[in-house]
Amino acid sequence: MTAVATKRVYLFHEGNAKMRDLLGGKGANLAEMTNIGLPVPPGFTITTEVCNEYYANGQKLPAGLMDDVRAAMKFVEEKMGRTFGGSYRPLLVSVRSGAKFSMPGMMDTILNLGLNETTAKALIEETNNPRFVYDAYRRFIMMFSDVVLGLSKHDFDNKILQAYKEQKGYKSDLEMSAEDWKLISEKFLEYVREKTGRDFPTDPYEQLELAIEAVFKSWNNERAIVYRRTEKIPDNLGTAVNVQAMVFGNAGDDSGTGVAFTRDPSTGEKVMFGEYLMNAQGEDVVAGVRTPVPISELQSQNPELYRQFVEICNILERHYRDMQDLEFTIEHGRLFMLQCRSGKRTGPAAVKIAVDMVHEGLITKEEAVTRVTGSHLDQLLHPRIDPKALEGKKPLITGIPASPGAAVGKVVFDADTAAKLGVHGGAGEKVILVRDETNPDDVHGMLASQGVLTARGGKTSHAAVVARGFGIPCVVGAEGLKIDEEAKTFTVNGTTVHEGDVITLDGSTGAVYLGALPLIAPEVSGAFAELMSWADSIRKLRVRTNADNPRDARQAVELGAEGIGLCRTEHMFFEQDRLPIVQEMILAQDEAVRQNALDRLLPIQQKDFEEIFEVMAGKPVTIRLIDPPLHEFLPSHDELLAQVVELRVRGDNPQELAEKEKLLRAVEGMREANPMMGLRGCRLSIVFPGIVEMQTRAILQAAVAVKKRGIDVYPEIMIPLVGHVNELKTVRANLERVAKKVIEETGVAIDYKFGTMIEIPRAALVADQLADPQNGNAEFFSFGTNDLTQMTFGFSRDDAGKFLVPYLEQKILPTDPFETIDQEGVGKLMRMATESAKRVRPDIKLGICGEHGGDPDSVKFCHRIGLDYVSCSPFRVPIARLAAAQAAIENAAEGDK
Amino acid sequence: MTAVATKRVYLFHEGNAKMRDLLGGKGANLAEMTNIGLPVPPGFTITTEVCNEYYANGQKLPAGLMDDVRAAMKFVEEKMGRTFGGSYRPLLVSVRSGAKFSMPGMMDTILNLGLNETTAKALIEETNNPRFVYDAYRRFIMMFSDVVLGLSKHDFDNKILQAYKEQKGYKSDLEMSAEDWKLISEKFLEYVREKTGRDFPTDPYEQLELAIEAVFKSWNNERAIVYRRTEKIPDNLGTAVNVQAMVFGNAGDDSGTGVAFTRDPSTGEKVMFGEYLMNAQGEDVVAGVRTPVPISELQSQNPELYRQFVEICNILERHYRDMQDLEFTIEHGRLFMLQCRSGKRTGPAAVKIAVDMVHEGLITKEEAVTRVTGSHLDQLLHPRIDPKALEGKKPLITGIPASPGAAVGKVVFDADTAAKLGVHGGAGEKVILVRDETNPDDVHGMLASQGVLTARGGKTSHAAVVARGFGIPCVVGAEGLKIDEEAKTFTVNGTTVHEGDVITLDGSTGAVYLGALPLIAPEVSGAFAELMSWADSIRKLRVRTNADNPRDARQAVELGAEGIGLCRTEHMFFEQDRLPIVQEMILAQDEAVRQNALDRLLPIQQKDFEEIFEVMAGKPVTIRLIDPPLHEFLPSHDELLAQVVELRVRGDNPQELAEKEKLLRAVEGMREANPMMGLRGCRLSIVFPGIVEMQTRAILQAAVAVKKRGIDVYPEIMIPLVGHVNELKTVRANLERVAKKVIEETGVAIDYKFGTMIEIPRAALVADQLADPQNGNAEFFSFGTNDLTQMTFGFSRDDAGKFLVPYLEQKILPTDPFETIDQEGVGKLMRMATESAKRVRPDIKLGICGEHGGDPDSVKFCHRIGLDYVSCSPFRVPIARLAAAQAAIENAAEGDK
Repeated sequence: MTAVATKRVYLFHEGNAKMRDLLGGKGANLAEMTNIGLPVPPGFTITTEVCNEYYANGQKLPAGLMDDVRAAMKFVEEKMGRTFGGSYRPLLVSVRSGAKFSMPGMMDTILNLGLNETTAKALIEETNNPRFVYDAYRRFIMMFSDVVLGLSKHDFDNKILQAYKEQKGYKSDLEMSAEDWKLISEKFLEYVREKTGRDFPTDPYEQLELAIEAVFKSWNNERAIVYRRTEKIPDNLGTAVNVQAMVFGNAGDDSGTGVAFTRDPSTGEKVMFGEYLMNAQGEDVVAGVRTPVPISELQSQNPELYRQFVEICNILERHYRDMQDLEFTIEHGRLFMLQCRSGKRTGPAAVKIAVDMVHEGLITKEEAVTRVTGSHLDQLLHPRIDPKALEGKKPLITGIPASPGAAVGKVVFDADTAAKLGVHGGAGEKVILVRDETNPDDVHGMLASQGVLTARGGKTSHAAVVARGFGIPCVVGAEGLKIDEEAKTFTVNGTTVHEGDVITLDGSTGAVYLGALPLIAPEVSGAFAELMSWADSIRKLRVRTNADNPRDARQAVELGAEGIGLCRTEHMFFEQDRLPIVQEMILAQDEAVRQNALDRLLPIQQKDFEEIFEVMAGKPVTIRLIDPPLHEFLPSHDELLAQVVELRVRGDNPQELAEKEKLLRAVEGMREANPMMGLRGCRLSIVFPGIVEMQTRAILQAAVAVKKRGIDVYPEIMIPLVGHVNELKTVRANLERVAKKVIEETGVAIDYKFGTMIEIPRAALVADQLADPQNGNAEFFSFGTNDLTQMTFGFSRDDAGKFLVPYLEQKILPTDPFETIDQEGVGKLMRMATESAKRVRPDIKLGICGEHGGDPDSVKFCHRIGLDYVSCSPFRVPIARLAAAQAAIENAAEGDK
Repeated sequence: MTAVATKRVYLFHEGNAKMRDLLGGKGANLAEMTNIGLPVPPGFTITTEVCNEYYANGQKLPAGLMDDVRAAMKFVEEKMGRTFGGSYRPLLVSVRSGAKFSMPGMMDTILNLGLNETTAKALIEETNNPRFVYDAYRRFIMMFSDVVLGLSKHDFDNKILQAYKEQKGYKSDLEMSAEDWKLISEKFLEYVREKTGRDFPTDPYEQLELAIEAVFKSWNNERAIVYRRTEKIPDNLGTAVNVQAMVFGNAGDDSGTGVAFTRDPSTGEKVMFGEYLMNAQGEDVVAGVRTPVPISELQSQNPELYRQFVEICNILERHYRDMQDLEFTIEHGRLFMLQCRSGKRTGPAAVKIAVDMVHEGLITKEEAVTRVTGSHLDQLLHPRIDPKALEGKKPLITGIPASPGAAVGKVVFDADTAAKLGVHGGAGEKVILVRDETNPDDVHGMLASQGVLTARGGKTSHAAVVARGFGIPCVVGAEGLKIDEEAKTFTVNGTTVHEGDVITLDGSTGAVYLGALPLIAPEVSGAFAELMSWADSIRKLRVRTNADNPRDARQAVELGAEGIGLCRTEHMFFEQDRLPIVQEMILAQDEAVRQNALDRLLPIQQKDFEEIFEVMAGKPVTIRLIDPPLHEFLPSHDELLAQVVELRVRGDNPQELAEKEKLLRAVEGMREANPMMGLRGCRLSIVFPGIVEMQTRAILQAAVAVKKRGIDVYPEIMIPLVGHVNELKTVRANLERVAKKVIEETGVAIDYKFGTMIEIPRAALVADQLADPQNGNAEFFSFGTNDLTQMTFGFSRDDAGKFLVPYLEQKILPTDPFETIDQEGVGKLMRMATESAKRVRPDIKLGICGEHGGDPDSVKFCHRIGLDYVSCSPFRVPIARLAAAQAAIENAAEGDK
C-alpha cells in the first residue's frame, strides 16, 4: 500500500482515455468523451485503487471516501441543476462497475439510484409522468435488491409482477398503468422487507454507498474469478465504480436508447451497425422484451439526430483510431453518449478493419498488424460453426480445445472403423473418431476422420499433437465422457450417443454439440493477404512449418511457410504399408533380417523425402531422425497379454499361443517404465545405428534425385534428444560418413547441415559444447520445447492432465506451459543456450519446433531471445508470421523508450 | 602436438619420482631410487610423449628416436662395462612398459633382450655357465615371440618344451641340461621361422626397436582399453618404455629374485612381507613353477643381505612416506632393486598403515586421511568373501555391483517365499532373492533376504536403491541370467540353478558364485575410529544419513551420522500391516472412507516418527512427505488384467470377476505413461491434500510426544518435487496451518522447519524464488540428485540400463551419472541454485540426499559448491565423512597455490 493518500474520486473531465488502470475502461472512456466535447451526462469515477484498498481493509470502504463522493456529487448536481435526493428536480444516477478490461462476470449496472418516496414524488411533479416514474422506481428496487441485497431478480419478475399481471389479465407491460407500477413498487418494497427483515434503504447516499460496495464485492464473485482465469486477467487490478447522472430513454416517445458499432463487427464492413428502441431503458434492449430496430431506421425517423450520431461516431473513430462499440440514450430528442469502447470483432472483421483503416489513413501498417490477434487469424483459417447456429445452443460437453476448426460427422469408436468409413481411402463418409485417448495405432483412423474427440489427455496428448499436425479439429480431455467400446456408445450426463449419431465439435473452443451444426468455410480474403504482407515486411523472425508429408508441406507453403522446421520421420513409419516392415526390423533376431527390412524401408523413405523436397523447392527442410522408442511401433502390450492369457486358459491353439507368447516376450523386453526418458532419440541411434544410417542415406539420395531434376535442396539433418556432446559427436561422425558416401557414389554435391534438438535440459546447459565447431559442431539448434518443458518441469504431458487442470484453476501455474513457453524456467534455459551457443558459433541457426512455435506469446519470446525462426503446424503459420511482426514492433517501441 | 623437440629418452639419473606423467610410474621410481643411491641396474626411459607421438604418427616410431636410444645405451654400456650385442661381455637388457598408473592389461616385460648366437657365446665364455645362458636364451625367444611377434607363449611351452621333456622322460625343468636348453632354443627359433615366415631377429637393436614398438602397441590392446575403462584412466596418457641392464637372479645358487611389501598389505601390520626364490628369474616366481619361500627366511640364509634389504626398505618407506611394493634381484650375492611403487592394500590395511604412519611420525593426519579411499572403507564396512577362497574361482556371472557386501544363501524366486523362508519373521534361513527386477511388492521379501540378484536394472534401479537403503548386498543387471519363474530355476551360460541351491554374491564387485564361499566379517578396528576422528576434525561438510526406520537410523548414528537427511515416509506405507489401509485410502470413493483410512494411518505414522526421533535424539531429521505416485501402492496392473481375462474366459465366478474388474478399472484410472513425471510429490499434496496433512500432523504429534519425554527434536519437513514457487507456497501454507494447530492443541513448542527438494530442473532455475523469505520461503534445500539427474539428462533410471551400459563402454559418458554427479550439467544446476538461493537467504541450509551423497567424488563436489551437508545410506556414512575431509584438504591445498 504505497501512499494511497492520492485522489480517490475523479470527475469525468479530470480523467482521460490513458487512465484505464486507475479509472477502468468505462470510466476512462467516459472521461475522454467528456473532454473531447461529446454530450456525456456528468458523473465521476471511484478508482480501482479504492477497490484494492477496500479488500486490503478487510472489505471496508476507506474512511473519508463518501466525503469525496459527496463533493463530486455536488459538482454533478450543479452541472445538472438537480439535487441528489432532492424534493425538487431530484438527481438520479446510474452506478456501474468498470475494470481495466471488460468483465462480463462483474456487476454491471444499477439505474435510477436515488429514488425514494420523496424523489419519486418530486420527479412526478417535474415530468408530470407518474407512469414513467413508478416504472423507473420498480426497476430500481429490483436491480438494487438483486445486486446489493442478494435477492433474485427473477423472484420480483416471476413471483410478483407476473402474478399481478395474471390477476389483472394483462398480457404486456404496456398495459400497466402508473397506478399499477406504483402498486408493484410497493409490493417490491414489501417483499424486500419480508426477505431481508429490514426496510429498503431510502437515504440516497446510503443507497449509493451500498451500491459502491456491491461493485467492489462483485470483483471477487465466482463468475468474475472464473472469467479472469479464462481470460488471464490478474486478480489485483480491481474495478472502478462509475456514478453518472441518469438520462432517460424511457422518458417518452421522443426518447430512446441503443447500442451501435461504428463498423460491422462480424464482417468489418464500414457501415453503421447497431439497433435502438424508442421510449426504453437500456435493459429493455438487452432483455429482449421488445424488439429493437436497426440503427439505419433512425435516419428516416430523425435525420438530424442520425446525422449528429454519425458525426459523433466519426469523431470517436478518428479520435480512438479504432472501431468503437457505443451506448447512447436519447432524452427528449437530445443525444447522450453513455459508453464507448473498442468493439469486439470476429477474426475476419479484425483483419478487414485493420487493413481498411490503413487505407483510410487512420492507422499505420504497424498498428494494423498489432490490431489483429492470433485467435482472430485462427478463426479465419479454419471452418467455424456458424455463430447464428450457436445462439442459445448448449454444448453436450466441453473439453480442452486441442486443434482448431469445427467438424461435423458420425461418431465412430475405433480407428479401423474410421478408416473404413472415412475419407482418404475409406467410404468417404464424414466421421468423428471418439476414443478414451489415442495412440500410434489410431493414426490411420484419425487421418480418415473429420475430427477427433478424446475423454482423456491434454493439449499435448498424442491425439492433440497428431491432430494439429494433420490440421484435423480435435477436442481432448472431455472429462465426464464415458465410452463403452463394446456397446459402441458414449454417455455424457445421462445422454447416450451411439455409433453413427452425428455430432459437431469445435476444436477452437472445446465445445461438442449433438447433431450437425452448419459450418462456415475459412475466408482467406484479400485483406488477409495484404495484412500478412505487411507482417512479413516488418518481422525479423522467419517462420517455418512442422510437416511430415507433402500435403502438409504444400498447405504450409501456401500459408507462407519459409521452410520446414520439423519433419518427423517416424510418422512415416506408422503408415499401413510400412508398419509391418518396421516391426520386422525391430523384432529381427539377427542382423541379416534386420538389414533386409532396412533395405526395404530405404526406397520408401527416400520417396517420402523426394516428395517433400520437391514441394519445398529450395526452402530448407529440417528432418529429425527417428525419435520415439521402438516399442511404439509394436502391438499393444496389454492386448497381447490378454490374448496370451485367453489362449492359455482355452488351451486349444498351442501354435498361436506360442507365437503370441514370443511376441509378448519381445514387447515386454522393450517395455519401459518411463518411455519418455528411455531408449529413444539419439540413444537409439547409438545402440541401433542401422535405422538412422538408412534414414540419412534416404535423405541424401532423395536430395540427389531432386537436385538432378533441377530443384534446389537444403536438407538439415537433426539429431534428437542429445544431452551430452559425445552423443552428438558419435552420431554425427557415423552419419557424416554415410552422407559423404552417398555424395561420393552419386557425384552430386548436396549442401546439407547437421544439427540437434535442444530438448533435454542438459543440452541447454552445455549448449556451448554442442555448438562449438571444435566439439559437438552442431550447425543449427532447434529447441524442442515440448520435451524441454516436460523435462524442465518434470511433467509427463500424457499424464499432466490430472494435476495441470487444478494447477491452472488454483493459479499455481499462470498459464499452461505446454501452450505458452514458461519464460522463468524453460525460457531461462533457452536464453542460456542461445547466448552460450552464439558465443562459440555466432552464425549458428537457431529455431524452435515445439508446439509453442504457433503460440503468439511464445513467438514473441523467441524473437526477444534472438532465435532465427519458429516452426509450427501449417495452420498456425500465419499466426506465427503475425506474432513475429508484432514482436518486432513491440521491440522497436521498447527500444524507443 | 606442441613442440615435441623435447627430450625423448631419460637416463635413470636424469629423472625423479615426480615425473610420473612423462616417465610412467615405473620409470619415475627407478630414477628416484637411482638418485637416492640405491643399487639399481642402469637404464633409461623412453617417455610417454613418444607413445602419443607414435600414435599421432600413424603408429610409427618418431624419426631419430633410435639414435637417442643408442646414445643412452652407450651410457649404460659404460656403466656396466659391457657392450650391447657385443662378442665380449655383452649387455643384455630388460624392456618394460610403464604408464603413469599401473596397468596390468599392458605388455609387462621382455627379459634378456640382446641375446643371439654371438652374445650367447660371449656370455658362455664369460660365465662358464652354458646352461644358464641357453635357459636365458630360450626364455628370451619365447617372451619376445609372445609379445612382439604375437605367437602364443603356451605353444612354446606346451607344444615344444613339454613334448621334448616327455620324449626325454624329464619330469622337471631342473633335469634339463645346457645342451637340452640349447636344443630347445633352436627348436624355438625354428618354430618362429615356420610360423612367421622369417627369421627371429638377431640384431640386438632391431630386437630393441621391435620391443619398444610392442610396448607402445600394448597401450591400445583390448585388455588395456578395458582396464582403463573400468579404472577411469584417460586414454591419452600413453605409456613409457623402460630399458634396463639385466642382472640375473638365475646366475647360480648365490643369486635369486623376489618381491616384497614393506608392510603386510592385507592387514597393514608393520612386518616385512614377501617371498623370494634363489637361482631364479622373476617369471619363475610369478609362474608358480617353483614355490618361493617367505622373505623372513633370507634372514637366516643370508643375514647381511637381509639387513641390507631391510635398510633399503626403511630408506624407501621414509623416502616415499608410504608402504612400498618392491622387486629385487640378487646376482652373485649382490642386491639390486628393480622396482618400487606404492603397495596396493586391502581396506583394513590401508586404514592401519595410514594411522600407524601418523604415530610413527612419517605422515600427517591430513595425509593419512587422503591415503584411504572410499572403497577401502567400503571393504571395511561389509562382510567380504575371503580373498583366499576366490583364488582361481570363476564367477558364474558378473552383474552391476549395486549394494556392497557379500552374501551367501539359498536361491528363491519370489518375495513371498523369501519372506517365508528368510530372516525377520520368516523361518530364519539365509536366502537370496533372484528376480528379473524388483518392485515395491517385493520389499518384504528383500528385507528377509541376505542378498538380492536381478537380471535387469542399473545402480539406481528399485532393487539397488532399496537394497542400499536396507544395507543388503545386491547385484543388478546380470544380463544373460535367464529366469524361469514357473520352473523356479535360472540359467546362465548353460548352468541351471534351482530354487534352494546356494550361491554367493559380492555386491562390491558384482560377481556371483555357485556354492557357499566363506565370508569375512567387517572389521571396525581402533585404527578406523582414530582415522575417522581425524577426518571429522578436518571436514567442514556435515554428514547425515538416509534412513526410513529406527534400525537404519541407529546403525547410521553408530557410523557417525549427524542427522537424517532423508527419511522417506512412503516406505513405511509398504509394510504389510499398513498397505491394506493405504490401498483403502487410495481407492476410497468418498471423502468419509478416505478420511477414516487416514485417521487409522495417523497413529501408525506417528509411532514411526517417535521411534526415529528418539534414536536421533537432538539431531535434525529431514522427513520427506509422500513422494511416489499412488498407483505404486496398488496391485500390479498386468497381474490384474491377466486375472480378469482368465475369469472372463472361465466365466465361472462372476462375483470375483466383477470385483477384479472394478479394481482393474481403478488401477487403470491411475495408470500413467511416465509415472516418474506424473502425479506424485507435491502435485499429489495439492490434488489430494489429506495424506500430507495427516503426515504433518503425525510428525508434529510425534515431536511433541518425544519432547515431552525430555528428548530434543528438530524435524525438518521436506516438500518433494517442487518445480514452481507456487507449489511450495500452496503446500507450505496448508501444512503450516496443520503444524501450528498441533502446537496450539498440545501447548508444546516445536522447532520445525519447512524446506524443499531440488530435484526438478526448473526448481534449480528458480531457486532464488523458492528460498526467498518473501516468496517460497524454503528454510532448507535438499538436492535430490537422483531425480535431478534423471530429468536433467532425460534418463529414466529404470530404463537407462539399455543405453547406459553401451554409453559407458563407448565412453559417451565418462562416468555413470547416477553414481557420480555430472558436474557439467546436473552440477551446473546445483551451483546455480546454491548461488542464487544464498543471495536471497544467506543462512539457507543446503544438503544433498541422492545416492550421490555416498560417492566420494560427488561429496567433494558438494563441498566445493558450499553445501552444508550430504546424506547417504548408513553404510556409506564413514565414506562420506572421509571424502568430506579429503575435500577440505584438497581445497586448502588449492587455496595454497
